[in-house]
Amino acid sequence: MSKKLTKRSEDYSKWYNELVVKADLAENSAVRGCMVIKPYGYAIWENMQKVLDGMFKETGHENAYFPLLVPKSLFEAEEKNAEGFAKECAVVTHYRLKNDPDNKGKLIVDPNAKLEEELVIRPTSEAIIWSTYKGWIESYRDLPLLINQWANVMRWEMRTRLFLRTAEFLWQEGHTAHATKAEAITESQKMQEVYADFAENFMAMPVVKGVKTESERFAGALDTYTIEALMQDGKALQAGTSHFLGQNFAEAFDVKFTNKEGKKEHVWATSWGVSTRLIGGLIMTHSDDLGLVLPPKLAPIQVVIVPIYRSDEQLELISEKANEIVVGLKKRGVSVKFDTRSTHKPGWKFAEYELKGVPLRIALGARDLESGTLEIARRDTLEKQTVAQEGVEDRIVSLLEEIQENLFNKAKEYRDEHITRVDSFEEFKDTIENKGGFVLAHWDGTEETEEKIKEITKATIRCIANDAENEEGNCVFSGKSSLRRVLFAKAY
Amino acid sequence: MSKKLTKRSEDYSKWYNELVVKADLAENSAVRGCMVIKPYGYAIWENMQKVLDGMFKETGHENAYFPLLVPKSLFEAEEKNAEGFAKECAVVTHYRLKNDPDNKGKLIVDPNAKLEEELVIRPTSEAIIWSTYKGWIESYRDLPLLINQWANVMRWEMRTRLFLRTAEFLWQEGHTAHATKAEAITESQKMQEVYADFAENFMAMPVVKGVKTESERFAGALDTYTIEALMQDGKALQAGTSHFLGQNFAEAFDVKFTNKEGKKEHVWATSWGVSTRLIGGLIMTHSDDLGLVLPPKLAPIQVVIVPIYRSDEQLELISEKANEIVVGLKKRGVSVKFDTRSTHKPGWKFAEYELKGVPLRIALGARDLESGTLEIARRDTLEKQTVAQEGVEDRIVSLLEEIQENLFNKAKEYRDEHITRVDSFEEFKDTIENKGGFVLAHWDGTEETEEKIKEITKATIRCIANDAENEEGNCVFSGKSSLRRVLFAKAY
Repeated sequence: MSKKLTKRSEDYSKWYNELVVKADLAENSAVRGCMVIKPYGYAIWENMQKVLDGMFKETGHENAYFPLLVPKSLFEAEEKNAEGFAKECAVVTHYRLKNDPDNKGKLIVDPNAKLEEELVIRPTSEAIIWSTYKGWIESYRDLPLLINQWANVMRWEMRTRLFLRTAEFLWQEGHTAHATKAEAITESQKMQEVYADFAENFMAMPVVKGVKTESERFAGALDTYTIEALMQDGKALQAGTSHFLGQNFAEAFDVKFTNKEGKKEHVWATSWGVSTRLIGGLIMTHSDDLGLVLPPKLAPIQVVIVPIYRSDEQLELISEKANEIVVGLKKRGVSVKFDTRSTHKPGWKFAEYELKGVPLRIALGARDLESGTLEIARRDTLEKQTVAQEGVEDRIVSLLEEIQENLFNKAKEYRDEHITRVDSFEEFKDTIENKGGFVLAHWDGTEETEEKIKEITKATIRCIANDAENEEGNCVFSGKSSLRRVLFAKAY
Repeated sequence: MSKKLTKRSEDYSKWYNELVVKADLAENSAVRGCMVIKPYGYAIWENMQKVLDGMFKETGHENAYFPLLVPKSLFEAEEKNAEGFAKECAVVTHYRLKNDPDNKGKLIVDPNAKLEEELVIRPTSEAIIWSTYKGWIESYRDLPLLINQWANVMRWEMRTRLFLRTAEFLWQEGHTAHATKAEAITESQKMQEVYADFAENFMAMPVVKGVKTESERFAGALDTYTIEALMQDGKALQAGTSHFLGQNFAEAFDVKFTNKEGKKEHVWATSWGVSTRLIGGLIMTHSDDLGLVLPPKLAPIQVVIVPIYRSDEQLELISEKANEIVVGLKKRGVSVKFDTRSTHKPGWKFAEYELKGVPLRIALGARDLESGTLEIARRDTLEKQTVAQEGVEDRIVSLLEEIQENLFNKAKEYRDEHITRVDSFEEFKDTIENKGGFVLAHWDGTEETEEKIKEITKATIRCIANDAENEEGNCVFSGKSSLRRVLFAKAY
């Protein structure tokens, strides 16, 4: 396999596609638009899951599991949600195959096994979950109901890209039920904060927190809170969303509770999710022309030790020292691999771990044993330093923290440099086309203007930032008055 | 909700169905044969996953994820496997819904969105995985390939029961590839050992390890290694299987590797899985007429503390002490809940935690504060004891170990009493009908006899035990000679 990657400056999109495959993260499968997540990619997802799951439980949520298939009649109950997803639904119509009488060894769909009602593979689970909640909620004592599900979902997208947009993807979806509107809004905002915390402090990916415009909302939501990140090519990535669903699903599925005064009311809802798309965001935030760069907090392997030796005796002595370091690192909770494969030369291994984004690489040779030193290479800065073996474990722990911080700062610096305030449509177009990144501009608040700007520039309103200042001005497109700037960008 | 359960002696099946629902483990959904796993049931599954996942990684396996959908042409490639599952396949034929022109607000399947090739929802993933392995395996250096997947699968069963047999279920499926036959057999046997270890040492469920007869094998396997448990009603439960697949899938998908001598050979395969069915086995091994009995190592809540108080002041003082104990227990890795709900009386809570199988219940009242004592109730024996508060944390840890051991011993005693050696078909029928359990009998080795015995008694050969002694005898049915006894039982 050629490890040589296309350069980002040549073709960013090609670089991304190559990197995902060459770093053994994922590949396309025999099923249109569906990916195989390979062990190294899945290990990143497992690390993400572990942290997020802890955060969800810390905020009072429990996990459960709801059916993959949704009867069409339930799916269509909440009209806006159904309309939003109908065009992307994989539909199960039959429940049996039989031998093809005309073609030995082949199977055909058994026409006698047609379902009375078609079943949709969940593109999202509001419908099946709210039809279930109806049986769980009677009184205010049953609320709030704070449930999360880890699952696969299916959206039949026409143009797919590994991790970023696939027909099947893995995600978590929280679905909560509340007695009051205020409580539901607080919950959806709280989960936006949880997502932002995860993105910034674990993925080292700075995000803007904001709220979507009506046209960009989740189908069936009254408000969609989002976290928006900026990729290295100047395009935005919607990294996680949390929806305030009002009483739409409670009305569609007739879910009512008896309040403290003994009156029946419809329940208030939220839903929120992040998916394997985050892995795409992780890649495009930090990686470089040599390969992946992974933040230590999510790297499957945080440290790799490569022995440099000419004879079996040398390897034995090096292994003794290396294993000591391995034990010391494991005690400190560091994930470490000692690569003793004799099938590959050290240089090959160096390139391999660079490609795979391992944060720290240690080279340990025969001469190091004499001098009591070793060489540490940082993946983020590519700097190498020779350090004493003594106390190296603590040094590594602090280097990993340093790398985590450095990655965030670097990404934040890039992101901040790519938020441009513009006051005319010329400037707007010029920035979107030539500089990229987020554009902060006044907008008149109409869907019409939003749509026209999108047609002309391909930029969409990513969000109205939570911390947007009140500032009177004029819409860059229509000139009409505006009370604050919103964030535009081309997006994945 | 009435908490009163049907007694096991009255109707075991009804008891089971009621218990699963009343203990909040799972319920039937709006989708035929598919269950909703509720938070308490899912928490048991999470505990099982955590332990098993650790065991898989400890034995060198990595997780990955493969597509949910399998193109029909891949599915049918390995004929025996396809034949075995064809009758239970949910089939996706379309990828879009559209508005029903005749019925506003309703959706219909869009006839223009018919797939060229139908997609099957995986009933098991050998086909999609081996079609992928073809691209991953070139040389002996790529072997062994040791991969596991946590996933949902779908088998359109006609008669379903919560956890035991559902159309959709959650499971893990290991799929490994090896250079030699011997290595693949070793792997499938090793995973049988892992499953037996998990069943006995975590579920406290004794199992017989054995091999399946040809007619009971997994479709496409050359050998199926199984662990068989015995439920309280005398029926057996197949709790986990590990398959030696020979070169069947490698041949079907043309997966070859270059061996050390430079020659191409087909790869050897195994697959192995356990599912949410284990939760059914857990319930039917330990629970009683009062509700669930959970082994401490898998219980979502190991200890519950219920305060007994008449005034807020009393509750405050009790809470202070209780919180001390909570901290002490958490330090020792014990999962503990302090139930301060004022909406329910202590007696109600006692019944609730009995129903939910919490291993230890602590009652702490105002008088206990004066005397420095508290009351501990064991769920397994229903014994209560008043003990000193001082040192109670260590006492609880050792009590939990004792309960774990006691549950295993009790189940093993029952199981051992229900292995009956029989030497005539009259005895065979009588035992199966009246005593239940496993019957150890001679069998002539033919599928014909196996089938006839099943017709007459509903008992099937669960396995030929790994530790079956060589013993010449005569088949209980045909009188033909036999070299060893095999294990029969009625089974779930």
